Amino acid sequence: MDGFTVWFTGLPSSGKSTLALGLERAIAARGRRVVRLDGDEVRQRLSKGLGFSKEDRDENIRRIGFVAGIATRCGGVAIVSAISPYRSVRDECRAEVRRFVEVFVDCPLDECIRRDVKGLYKKAIAGEIKNFTGVSDPYEPPLNPEVTVKTADGTPEKGVDRILETLTTLGYL
Amino acid sequence: MDGFTVWFTGLPSSGKSTLALGLERAIAARGRRVVRLDGDEVRQRLSKGLGFSKEDRDENIRRIGFVAGIATRCGGVAIVSAISPYRSVRDECRAEVRRFVEVFVDCPLDECIRRDVKGLYKKAIAGEIKNFTGVSDPYEPPLNPEVTVKTADGTPEKGVDRILETLTTLGYL
Repeated sequence: MDGFTVWFTGLPSSGKSTLALGLERAIAARGRRVVRLDGDEVRQRLSKGLGFSKEDRDENIRRIGFVAGIATRCGGVAIVSAISPYRSVRDECRAEVRRFVEVFVDCPLDECIRRDVKGLYKKAIAGEIKNFTGVSDPYEPPLNPEVTVKTADGTPEKGVDRILETLTTLGYL
Repeated sequence: MDGFTVWFTGLPSSGKSTLALGLERAIAARGRRVVRLDGDEVRQRLSKGLGFSKEDRDENIRRIGFVAGIATRCGGVAIVSAISPYRSVRDECRAEVRRFVEVFVDCPLDECIRRDVKGLYKKAIAGEIKNFTGVSDPYEPPLNPEVTVKTADGTPEKGVDRILETLTTLGYL
């Protein structure tokens, strides 16, 4: 069966990892081979030495796109969760992977700051972290994502179900 | 079907790419999904900014190993051709990938220098390139490769056949 990539993009603490984990389980339960590529983890494996300038972020995302493309060509399902704040490099990844499903994890900044899963917004607002997406660095939402999940409303389970429906409609599942 | 990785290691101009290309065709002809990861190409995609010190070479090879592992987990066949001169980091890749078939592309240095496919030995011997494997940088041959192909004797086709036999014996094909 042909592979595909599901790419979660959104602000820090918007809920990307939760959805990615839920989707990973649901797809593995269907007997498909899945690899989950978490932005922070992949940075350790592929991008030691890169920082958080636009140029370095873009390079990091390109590398994730390269790996997602390989997983897809091998018939696997790549699930990427990465802030990936810049539209143009996400579109580069889409062009490379081809069977590419972009999921916009849409959550108001206030709510992300309230959640602050890793305590990084607090540090960024205090000026202790520079180039922090949503505070001191831009986030460009997708213009035509295949799915938008508003994580301030509804449960993660419902979000995962919506994505699974889209994947079925696209003929990928 | 489960994936696996075939890892070609050897001196520059030893014949890794020729064997990798031949093997890629033979495995694709069996209906398997294959990705070929050429050391120089992957360096462009994953390791811009890394040089040729031992540390940087090792990091580059670790990244290739990470990608080969993902392709393998997705059920694909990863074919890596990379000088990968250091034994310990090849063994790290073996541990990560698990279904890992190391092919030592064994060719005497004199013959590699005679071939000099990319004209780099000439430059290295003239001192124009530093850290060149075989001239000014070490090459550590594998101690227990699954296959050794002596490319100064026999044709590439026979080498590919030997590798295919080993893959069949291992139950990977």
